Amino acid sequence: MRSKIKNIAIVGGTHGNEFTGAYLAKYWQDNPQEIRRESFNTRAILANPKAFEQVRRYVDRDLNRTCSLTRMNDSSCQTYEDTLARSLREELSNRVEFIVDLHTTTANMGASLVVSSTGELTWACVAYLCEKFQDLKVYRWQGDIENAYVNSLAKDGFAIEVGAVPQGVLRGDVYAKSREMTLAVLDFIELYNQNDIVNEREFMIYDHVELVDYPRDSKGDIVAMVHPDLQDRDFTLLREGDAIFLGFDGKVTRYNKAEPLHTLFINEAAYYEKGFAFCLAREESVRLSCL
Amino acid sequence: MRSKIKNIAIVGGTHGNEFTGAYLAKYWQDNPQEIRRESFNTRAILANPKAFEQVRRYVDRDLNRTCSLTRMNDSSCQTYEDTLARSLREELSNRVEFIVDLHTTTANMGASLVVSSTGELTWACVAYLCEKFQDLKVYRWQGDIENAYVNSLAKDGFAIEVGAVPQGVLRGDVYAKSREMTLAVLDFIELYNQNDIVNEREFMIYDHVELVDYPRDSKGDIVAMVHPDLQDRDFTLLREGDAIFLGFDGKVTRYNKAEPLHTLFINEAAYYEKGFAFCLAREESVRLSCL
Repeated sequence: MRSKIKNIAIVGGTHGNEFTGAYLAKYWQDNPQEIRRESFNTRAILANPKAFEQVRRYVDRDLNRTCSLTRMNDSSCQTYEDTLARSLREELSNRVEFIVDLHTTTANMGASLVVSSTGELTWACVAYLCEKFQDLKVYRWQGDIENAYVNSLAKDGFAIEVGAVPQGVLRGDVYAKSREMTLAVLDFIELYNQNDIVNEREFMIYDHVELVDYPRDSKGDIVAMVHPDLQDRDFTLLREGDAIFLGFDGKVTRYNKAEPLHTLFINEAAYYEKGFAFCLAREESVRLSCL
Repeated sequence: MRSKIKNIAIVGGTHGNEFTGAYLAKYWQDNPQEIRRESFNTRAILANPKAFEQVRRYVDRDLNRTCSLTRMNDSSCQTYEDTLARSLREELSNRVEFIVDLHTTTANMGASLVVSSTGELTWACVAYLCEKFQDLKVYRWQGDIENAYVNSLAKDGFAIEVGAVPQGVLRGDVYAKSREMTLAVLDFIELYNQNDIVNEREFMIYDHVELVDYPRDSKGDIVAMVHPDLQDRDFTLLREGDAIFLGFDGKVTRYNKAEPLHTLFINEAAYYEKGFAFCLAREESVRLSCL
């Protein structure tokens, strides 16, 4: 018989200007009864308090790209977020089995999960949530050689991404959806501990294919915007010839791949500096038992 | 016969994370033909380049609250934005007759103007724009004892506010609307210089009444969000008993004034720190000749 889950963590404010997770974490720290369950312990963590206070994504560098073992073991890495990553590792690694990291996005992603763990528990939970929330979308990210996400500090877990919501803003609907999904994760763990989950499920996921950058000039400045026809169309299929960018000079850039792919994270504010305007993904049906 | 307008300024990026105006100003600096008119000169200015580069509203303090004569004459005021304000004053005061300052908001304000000037030219232009853009809303702000807005560096002008758009994001629709409205201001000045404007017009404005803050705890932290029933309902009428806030604990706060008033700037990201969740305004019909 499999071992029971003893400890999980709900992390919010990994990005300080994504208010939903930060305020949920703070609320649950002060009101732990809502996240208390019979068979396991849950801790709520506000991951980047300084960035939250400053209403910025991060102080020195993106905490959600800072949790790789290589960086944490490199004593020359001493930014504020490196320090945070090490203390999170101290607090979480080998101490919690599952991490839910709460994010929001300015893209019209609705309720979605970003999953990079290959753990069985992770995917059983994903399957459970997909059944519970019919509109839920799952983005499988396998792009990093070494996973540096906060949720990678435990073997299992994922990021919950809800949008669209501006940075530095709380929206009631986004807050409610994030709360509801997080509480559903707790319900799942409870069922899992009671051996009461279904292992045979089939559902759709979006597998990462590539990142697409804005058209830029020789200095690296963007010279076009996401085309209005693409804006807000996350998780829809892009076909050859579809408009993707509109230049400040009126020039239209079109999608030129033969394979239609789905678009995600369209026009997310934080990704201008990372150098991409949207992600492309391939829709696939997966069976839980095959993962 | 009245004197002709010789010089005007289009200012963008007064707030560095309001990308629309910043990119429009940059584009027009590089492509001045679009803003060139027969009878007057137009300069395009990127007001806060450092904040734009850092994708922040400001570096040290809000530039759009820093342009009062008192501050500019006070040599002890030496923040980055104080320096900017003085150099803008040098460049603009007594050199341009009209300033259009381009802003965006995370609130669902649509296309709107924020007007604090009482100048005749200003209001003739407002009237012209109201006729040209049927959905345009006008918010008259008379709250400051001393006006500290960038557009107050000229006798005439106003801020164009378009939303909803997140900070640090360009949306094609918001960009197009801001561009169209700015070009219409230039068309108006051209007509004005040709004595070809109508002085008798009637239109609706929203007169500032008060600012409403979020419910907060004793530490000053917010304990509630804008209620989902109010979210995105800018320029609609709030009546006694309508829900305005939803507490993290589920508690609903209701509007308790006898006078119904219109709501504006609902849930604007930048106003969390300023201490208000939305503005209340009174709808009024004004005649141009009475202003």
